[in-house]
Amino acid sequence: MDDATLTRFADLVVGFGANVQPDQIVAIGGEPGKEYLVRALAASAYRHGAKFVDVAWFDPHLKRARIQHARPETLEFVPPWYGERILALGDQRAARVALSGPSAPGLLSDLDPVLVGRDRLPTVKEGIKVVNDRTTNWTICPCASSAWAELVFPDLDASARMERLESELLHVLRLDEEDPIAAWRARADTLVSSAERLSARRFDALHYTGPGTDLTIGLLPSSDWRAARFQTVDGIEHMPNLPTEEVFTTPDPERTHGVVTSTKPLVLIDGTVVRDLAVRFEAGRAVDVQASEGGQTLSTILETDDGAARLGECALVDREGRIGELGTIFFDTLLDENAASHLALGQGFPFVLDEPERPRANESQIHIDFMIGSNELTVTGLTADGERVSVLADGTWQL
Amino acid sequence: MDDATLTRFADLVVGFGANVQPDQIVAIGGEPGKEYLVRALAASAYRHGAKFVDVAWFDPHLKRARIQHARPETLEFVPPWYGERILALGDQRAARVALSGPSAPGLLSDLDPVLVGRDRLPTVKEGIKVVNDRTTNWTICPCASSAWAELVFPDLDASARMERLESELLHVLRLDEEDPIAAWRARADTLVSSAERLSARRFDALHYTGPGTDLTIGLLPSSDWRAARFQTVDGIEHMPNLPTEEVFTTPDPERTHGVVTSTKPLVLIDGTVVRDLAVRFEAGRAVDVQASEGGQTLSTILETDDGAARLGECALVDREGRIGELGTIFFDTLLDENAASHLALGQGFPFVLDEPERPRANESQIHIDFMIGSNELTVTGLTADGERVSVLADGTWQL
Repeated sequence: MDDATLTRFADLVVGFGANVQPDQIVAIGGEPGKEYLVRALAASAYRHGAKFVDVAWFDPHLKRARIQHARPETLEFVPPWYGERILALGDQRAARVALSGPSAPGLLSDLDPVLVGRDRLPTVKEGIKVVNDRTTNWTICPCASSAWAELVFPDLDASARMERLESELLHVLRLDEEDPIAAWRARADTLVSSAERLSARRFDALHYTGPGTDLTIGLLPSSDWRAARFQTVDGIEHMPNLPTEEVFTTPDPERTHGVVTSTKPLVLIDGTVVRDLAVRFEAGRAVDVQASEGGQTLSTILETDDGAARLGECALVDREGRIGELGTIFFDTLLDENAASHLALGQGFPFVLDEPERPRANESQIHIDFMIGSNELTVTGLTADGERVSVLADGTWQL
Repeated sequence: MDDATLTRFADLVVGFGANVQPDQIVAIGGEPGKEYLVRALAASAYRHGAKFVDVAWFDPHLKRARIQHARPETLEFVPPWYGERILALGDQRAARVALSGPSAPGLLSDLDPVLVGRDRLPTVKEGIKVVNDRTTNWTICPCASSAWAELVFPDLDASARMERLESELLHVLRLDEEDPIAAWRARADTLVSSAERLSARRFDALHYTGPGTDLTIGLLPSSDWRAARFQTVDGIEHMPNLPTEEVFTTPDPERTHGVVTSTKPLVLIDGTVVRDLAVRFEAGRAVDVQASEGGQTLSTILETDDGAARLGECALVDREGRIGELGTIFFDTLLDENAASHLALGQGFPFVLDEPERPRANESQIHIDFMIGSNELTVTGLTADGERVSVLADGTWQL
């Protein structure tokens, strides 16, 4: 990526996605192999008036060393200052930027998945609180790396892979538009209006059908649908995902039943790839998890707490938008979830509910999205009085 | 470096230098380019029973971005959690490993030295407290990187440079001995006995003479000389420098006068190289600082606080030991200071003084060593009743 493009990229993420304000502390999560973008983001943040850029580097190789050599009973330990830093970022009204894109895919795949599931770093439980408090303006954007390019385009040679990945990222980030910020404002308008139409129907439940899927998800009376634009408690607008194509809400964690089959692989934050995932729900709980790869690590994570095996999010993605049309499997939740409708196990979003109903949102230390959407998926809305309303069919909104 | 050598290296640093105990948290300071050693140290720490390895990564390129783009009035800001983490490491009785060796020498040399001097990261003021509290067992060891190898051996080609640097490091670390730990125990015995002979003389002052140097440093009545072995408040023995060849004390910060000229370049923690340094002292204070390069950055740092321009340490190094005999200038304080007698501006070592005298040790947020030793340097001890006793001449102990 040439310097001018890298600067445009960083300015989109900092100036629009996270919407960094003068005098803010800006926290960035970095990994080895992503230094080039972290440094460009830092420069952009300082140009936008940031007071300090605080990069938390996560090295998956250190996680591997820990799982290989540490005593198993210590694997859940996290030094208290990890969570205290996150809470302090909230207290200080900081901005935050996270970088998606696996930097070392498969690095842990030869290790005992039970042990791998115990160490959940770089995720810390305090992260969910800060999101729900809406005290920070934040975004997640993808960062190309050679390891990721190899995962996505194994049949291309090393330089062609990286070029192809970068070019697809620039396209889905709308950085190939003359004015990417204007393009994003227009797309956000569309997504927000879809969310408003969905919210207006007040469905009691959604019924999903498709290959390997026959699932009913109960919604809460005040489950509001949201998209693209978040606002902090102080009124700073930001776009939490760059790119974003989804419309989402938080469901009733007690009323999901049936079977759902994933349509894309899922890469856990530690690099474990979960393939061909099928989950059976009873009374809101995932009671059976099958996968051709990575299932045991996921199952271990779902034992984290009671809410880990219940749904916190359901999200709908139409066939428009730029990710799905590429047909690329990115092995990266940020991109793949925005290519297809998806569900998430674990923590819900109480902020989409009316105040009195917020305690009913699912609670967990985890939040794991998995993709279930395809053009063969049909989503039907069920009203409280038994009416069935087509919502999404053949990848197209029916509302 | 082959894997077996890297493991021996890491085991020496972790198992002997820092002397990591089972169930300790181990803090490591890493930089881009040093990942290979950080990961080997982490694996060794876990094999030694560590509960958690917490790596604080410092990226000099982020510092460059900050100095280039941040508002100058923000450059002294440090998020409170940086210092809180260091204090927590003390509270938790952690082990600590720092890696010396410049990873990006000269990276800041084209920037305004006044601005460069304001941002002192990765140093935080709380670090000095934790050292003086003796709550952590710690060590500093060198880590080879290609950028460092180029700085030290610019006339060799890239692979030859790295090989030469690694080979010299393995030699000065005594890793070319069959039993490096036994070799270090023997050298430590020698250094400690030299320190004990010096302490026994209770000199009132030291007089240094040599080319460009005519300096008298007053000592405090209880200035004790130390070497090689430290002990934490809990009795854990550790070797703070690997390698170490020095015998040192903390002087009277009010009674240094005369001129001293450095005999080796000094590399500041931010990569700035200070060459041909000459400092004039009056009544303990550095009143004039001259250098052919890097002098302005150093002068800015000496304005940090009142103690920054006073001496906190004087250290004597004989011509034995493995660093001086190589004749290599490493541009790295850990190695160069152990090749030659040196002084340090800034924070002293109250723990070498008797309890009632500890408040007289110099206090500062900085501690910068600079090398003044050579075979042409003569050090004479002055007793309270005016006797002159030869201490070091021609690089050899005279006591």
